[in-house]
Amino acid sequence: MAVKITETALRDAHQSLIATRMRTRDILDIVEQLDDVGYWSLEMWGGATFDTSIRYLNEDPWQRLRDIKSRMKKTPAQMLLRGQNLVGYRHYSDDVVEKFVTKAHENGIDIFRIFDALNDFRNIETSVRTAKKVGAHVQGTVSYTISPVHTPETFIKMAKQLEEMDCDSICIKDMAGLLSPAAASEIVSGMKKEVSIPICVHSHCTSGMAPVMYYAAVEAGADIIDTAISPFGWGSSQPPTEAMVASLMGTKYDTGISLEKFNEITPFFRNLKDKYNSICDPISETIDANVILYQIPGGMLSNLVSQLKEQNALDKYMDVLAEMPRVREELGYPPLVTPTSQIVGTQAVLNVIMGERYKVIPKEVKDYARGYYGKTPVPMSPEMISLIIGDEQPITVRPGDQIPPEYEKMKKEAEEMGIAKSEEDVLTYILYPAIAPKFLKGEAEEEELVCGCSIPSSGSVNTA
Amino acid sequence: MAVKITETALRDAHQSLIATRMRTRDILDIVEQLDDVGYWSLEMWGGATFDTSIRYLNEDPWQRLRDIKSRMKKTPAQMLLRGQNLVGYRHYSDDVVEKFVTKAHENGIDIFRIFDALNDFRNIETSVRTAKKVGAHVQGTVSYTISPVHTPETFIKMAKQLEEMDCDSICIKDMAGLLSPAAASEIVSGMKKEVSIPICVHSHCTSGMAPVMYYAAVEAGADIIDTAISPFGWGSSQPPTEAMVASLMGTKYDTGISLEKFNEITPFFRNLKDKYNSICDPISETIDANVILYQIPGGMLSNLVSQLKEQNALDKYMDVLAEMPRVREELGYPPLVTPTSQIVGTQAVLNVIMGERYKVIPKEVKDYARGYYGKTPVPMSPEMISLIIGDEQPITVRPGDQIPPEYEKMKKEAEEMGIAKSEEDVLTYILYPAIAPKFLKGEAEEEELVCGCSIPSSGSVNTA
Ligand SMILES: [Co+2]
Ligand SMILES: [Co+2]
Repeated sequence: MAVKITETALRDAHQSLIATRMRTRDILDIVEQLDDVGYWSLEMWGGATFDTSIRYLNEDPWQRLRDIKSRMKKTPAQMLLRGQNLVGYRHYSDDVVEKFVTKAHENGIDIFRIFDALNDFRNIETSVRTAKKVGAHVQGTVSYTISPVHTPETFIKMAKQLEEMDCDSICIKDMAGLLSPAAASEIVSGMKKEVSIPICVHSHCTSGMAPVMYYAAVEAGADIIDTAISPFGWGSSQPPTEAMVASLMGTKYDTGISLEKFNEITPFFRNLKDKYNSICDPISETIDANVILYQIPGGMLSNLVSQLKEQNALDKYMDVLAEMPRVREELGYPPLVTPTSQIVGTQAVLNVIMGERYKVIPKEVKDYARGYYGKTPVPMSPEMISLIIGDEQPITVRPGDQIPPEYEKMKKEAEEMGIAKSEEDVLTYILYPAIAPKFLKGEAEEEELVCGCSIPSSGSVNTA
Repeated sequence: MAVKITETALRDAHQSLIATRMRTRDILDIVEQLDDVGYWSLEMWGGATFDTSIRYLNEDPWQRLRDIKSRMKKTPAQMLLRGQNLVGYRHYSDDVVEKFVTKAHENGIDIFRIFDALNDFRNIETSVRTAKKVGAHVQGTVSYTISPVHTPETFIKMAKQLEEMDCDSICIKDMAGLLSPAAASEIVSGMKKEVSIPICVHSHCTSGMAPVMYYAAVEAGADIIDTAISPFGWGSSQPPTEAMVASLMGTKYDTGISLEKFNEITPFFRNLKDKYNSICDPISETIDANVILYQIPGGMLSNLVSQLKEQNALDKYMDVLAEMPRVREELGYPPLVTPTSQIVGTQAVLNVIMGERYKVIPKEVKDYARGYYGKTPVPMSPEMISLIIGDEQPITVRPGDQIPPEYEKMKKEAEEMGIAKSEEDVLTYILYPAIAPKFLKGEAEEEELVCGCSIPSSGSVNTA
């Protein structure tokens, strides 16, 4: 059966390699050719894309979506949505989630890949329901991770739940490049027995296993794989598109895509890669089998390097790598993906830099212990909870249930500030209240693309 | 069944990425750790290694062999031998071949991988027989290529011939990264039905297919794969060792090698890679699906870039790429590997640069048409032969048969020049009469490792 391809060049690939800095004007000229390749979908929007647009590029993310979409006639436009987190860093109220998904669809998104970092599917209920309601394709997502409690059966059961939630396809999201061929084979073949909707596999080459893992997954029945055009492939990004297309040629999984389709696309992105080379950390471009030992996703590695550089503590790199699995275990084995990757990563950095574990605890870690992010894969120990939040009682309800409607209130705020010309602007403001006003007033400036090596560090280096 | 690994870091990997410039003193400190990994073999000697040592590094290649070997207690030392070509660029007389193989074994080579560029096995008869006689392991090689006349059956039949020649194992040598998973699967499973000796697969990541191809080959029964430690893997080199070891973990093909074995080896080679970075052409580090269209091996691409740069004609790169398959067809579809890659490559460059095809024809191309390199896979047309060598009649006998014994004569020459302190020195002189005297007199100088981008160009960029 022909394998389908999701091209990630415009979302995950540049997020993984160049901190999501690709300007819209730099990519518009190639969109029609990408549209013509025969991809199953083109991933081109997500949390980091949204954040970076307003924070660094002085670009309206909605306009970016419309501009790209207007050049796509055949290929569905896909986005990555963090469930109740949408494209922000906290849970939003249901009315905001409904409005955002509706507007994203109106502006061009055809396929919503929706995930929750903790695989707490209560956190994707509202967005899945809304996306289905507006007629979009919903790809429900299983965030893959390795831990004593994450067996193949765990993931197979999740796939069944997603199918029951009316998802149109399932994504096994291996944001860390940890999924081995053996595990993929077992999980995918197990899922194929239990669900009838297509299965997509998403991975990163961080440990170098992804190309072979894709092949093993395809042999086990996977229908779709995520790849990135070769100049933006490999390293902490996806397996190269051309390599996977070529690898499947002549097998019964042949994608049907001709390599000649890439004759102009590959050089185009090679030039783009050269242009952005100064913000590409060499660490992101090589593979590192250590991720299998430390279980750190690709984006998290480059984020960690930036954080440590900023603190002049790059020599603590190996210490922090070793601290991360400890923190992760104490927090109930969350898969590491935005926002849990930041939660675990920041706490691990603090534990090492401060010289005392949990001496400083950020608000996000406290909220996590309070249950605001959802149910952890294994319950945290009472000792850990009390170490982090003292006597407070964690919540057990769906986190979204305790957030009162906020759209109208925030809309009014935005109107009073005179920054909302559209509902899209209101959403931008709700998602990024700290930085959106400056951007919406037209006072933001585009970050200069500097030469030399400097990845600006901030919460905006996402892991997905 | 556990898959075995041949590590190529000390031969093919640095040949593919840094023009075989790794100094012996830079690698000796890691040999004992490599020896401890559990590799099936460590490839560490070959044509380019020999050539570069005396031409650029002012190193005695025999001393390099002894120095590395002295630190290896468990792992067999492997070399790549070009059949009757040995490690030089022409065919030598049988007595020289016998002497060379005997001396290589005495100095430390345990496994001889022996190939002929045209798969004319008359050209490997003498070296195979000698290596068997001295008690070495002989890996008979099939040079893989794609052409209308190279069917899977062609290669399966060759494997049978190699087994009949008493080879201990077979290598499918995919020097160009052209072998697809589908083809590998068909060829390997076909060979497994016909021969009982182990099968090794050797490839390059040039087109990006190699990691998946290895997996497909292993599923089809391949016993050994060639990989390169990750800082020297990928691109026009082999698939990364750690990635392949990790990819096979937990499958029935698990290598049994622990990733922790690489904890110090990987950083060691990462530092070495940084040191030699100035001579690494970026083109060698990325993948290029065009090789599938043009069928150009990895080493040939970087060689081509150097040749064109030297002539200030880098803008002709695409023209030459397009000319190569034409020349190759006219020359009877030789697999492209040293020396045929140079023969086809140089003629293609000349055809483009001179503005008229076959206006200038180098001696090597003439000798090729004369049959001095062996039998071409398909006979060349009488028109092409006469275009190249006029009225001359090509030979049909084994090329080695018409070369009179030359060892004693050359030995005498060397002794008269006072440059031969050992039989190894005599062999060095026989193989490289033009440059060996200067080296043997101690008048050679080590090439400086310069910063900036400059791959010295010459016949010494080999393809294997
Ligand atoms: Co991702
Ligand atoms: Co090779």
